[in-house]
Amino acid sequence: MIKILVDAMGGDNAPRATVAGAVIASQKDKQLYIILTGRKDEIQAELDRHKYDKSRFEIVDCPDVIDMNDVPTEAVKKKGSSLIHAFWMLKKEEDICALVSAGSTGAMIAGGQLILGRIRGVKRPALCAPIPNSRGGITLLNDCGANAECKIEMLCQFAILASAYAKAGFGVENPKVGLLNNGSEEHKGDPLRQQTYQCLNALNGINFAGNAEGRDIMLGDFDVVVADGFSGNIALKSMEGCGKLVLGVLKKEFSSSLSSKIGYLFMRKAIKRMRGQLDFDKAGGALLLGLKKPVIKSHGSSKPETIAASINHAATVHRNALIPAIEQLLDDCGIEGISEIINVGE
Amino acid sequence: MIKILVDAMGGDNAPRATVAGAVIASQKDKQLYIILTGRKDEIQAELDRHKYDKSRFEIVDCPDVIDMNDVPTEAVKKKGSSLIHAFWMLKKEEDICALVSAGSTGAMIAGGQLILGRIRGVKRPALCAPIPNSRGGITLLNDCGANAECKIEMLCQFAILASAYAKAGFGVENPKVGLLNNGSEEHKGDPLRQQTYQCLNALNGINFAGNAEGRDIMLGDFDVVVADGFSGNIALKSMEGCGKLVLGVLKKEFSSSLSSKIGYLFMRKAIKRMRGQLDFDKAGGALLLGLKKPVIKSHGSSKPETIAASINHAATVHRNALIPAIEQLLDDCGIEGISEIINVGE
Repeated sequence: MIKILVDAMGGDNAPRATVAGAVIASQKDKQLYIILTGRKDEIQAELDRHKYDKSRFEIVDCPDVIDMNDVPTEAVKKKGSSLIHAFWMLKKEEDICALVSAGSTGAMIAGGQLILGRIRGVKRPALCAPIPNSRGGITLLNDCGANAECKIEMLCQFAILASAYAKAGFGVENPKVGLLNNGSEEHKGDPLRQQTYQCLNALNGINFAGNAEGRDIMLGDFDVVVADGFSGNIALKSMEGCGKLVLGVLKKEFSSSLSSKIGYLFMRKAIKRMRGQLDFDKAGGALLLGLKKPVIKSHGSSKPETIAASINHAATVHRNALIPAIEQLLDDCGIEGISEIINVGE
Repeated sequence: MIKILVDAMGGDNAPRATVAGAVIASQKDKQLYIILTGRKDEIQAELDRHKYDKSRFEIVDCPDVIDMNDVPTEAVKKKGSSLIHAFWMLKKEEDICALVSAGSTGAMIAGGQLILGRIRGVKRPALCAPIPNSRGGITLLNDCGANAECKIEMLCQFAILASAYAKAGFGVENPKVGLLNNGSEEHKGDPLRQQTYQCLNALNGINFAGNAEGRDIMLGDFDVVVADGFSGNIALKSMEGCGKLVLGVLKKEFSSSLSSKIGYLFMRKAIKRMRGQLDFDKAGGALLLGLKKPVIKSHGSSKPETIAASINHAATVHRNALIPAIEQLLDDCGIEGISEIINVGE
């Protein structure tokens, strides 16, 4: 049994989409045991809409819900809320493997840091988003929003965390790491980027391949792109915005004339594949890397399929022992080593 | 007559594409007088491939060419190069209105600052890119690469410069200005963003509408999005990368099956329109804002149509008196005023 917590009240479509997603995930993976946190009556009513295996579902009643407007540090104190109660269970109950929520990112980061806690040696957890790339694979963008301000050591750790995740989460051997920068040449960027470049280059244990430009994220030449949470967030949302615009224009054009409508009939499959290639949610959401257990932030507007993908992905990273892999790679790379390199660099 | 300088040797496809572009532009706008700088024989040979109005073309022989690998501050010293000679002509000859080049961005910024010079009061010139948005219009992203590190006052000036440009270059009345940030709420971002938000909000003369997220750039809710050159560059290239991926996937899908090929025949027009909507070069390139005359940086891989669009756009901003409009708006907003707001803010 793989026990996974699902914050049933998180996200725009909760609890309908979260419960439906949990049921889909449980059908796909018979080893899953799902604990739904939230308002018991509402959750039960949603569960009753589906055929589900009662022996693998549990509801933990939490009367409170965190509002998207709650300040994260205040939200963390709402112990009766579906998200914060889940964090406490995740911390205390050893046999619970992971947590999935489509709720407030800020509250999740705060809960992760203040309740669950970081892996030994990790300075700050980072939000790592899987981006679909033109090779049909995934590029991990880390950090994409947890830390607006970063230091060299944090960026180096983000590279280590995401390298371990690329392997445990997506089966990538020896993942190629790039540093998000405003040009590919070594001297590019601000002093933070210039110094981080040198440190990543000197770091044993990861496969650093140089600077990555914004356009490289979706190209797929890198498996991991390291960024501070500010520019990573801007890159992620810029790509999402562009993808949305394209799908919107496509939709409009398909119905713009009789000729286009006929064309669409012939191209339905191709269009569907294309839509899939632009689906930022297909891997299920962003993983909060650096915490003691996997915590997945699913998109706020998650549909049942997105929630299901997040839950199934949480089971995958647990099976592939992500956390021990991170601990091992942190050891191999030598946290102390990073500090020394930095002292030389600065 | 509107005299415009074209660096005939700049860009991957020079001088063929630059000369062809100049001819196209001159056919579209009979008031243009074009001065091509570069290797005279090569340029003349290219010109001879076209039918062109000899009375409106002039070649200035420059034996040198700036290499894309030249360090900008060194490049500026190459007085015999097509780009730097053009900057000196632009500075010295009052009746020359603007300069267009598809050459090295770094050399253009250096040439702009060190040779042509800034408008009085402008701290730093910024590279302002016109991005196609989902409303069928243009969103100006300023700065998208000239200044990796920025201060509050610079970001405030970028807002002023681009507001004047939105009106003179694209006819937008009272352009809506957004600050590129990792969230829409007022408190979002690092201290630079938080303080700049307050200053922009207090600034009279521009229409500040709050924070813009990455996805808002292509949505079209803002006419101007202000960014430091680092995150602006990452946003621009992330969107370009996504657009390229989509067009690549579309192309592949169209020929993936007989059914798709038939569909394509019916949808050709719709697809062409869509490609147009994703064309980051349709407005011709990025304008270096804050210099004493308009300088347009066309994409390095510019085709003749892109160069032509840049030249015609340069004539438009000259006709609409961009430079006096910037001077006026800087006065209206009160440079001194910005400093005072900042002193309170910091």
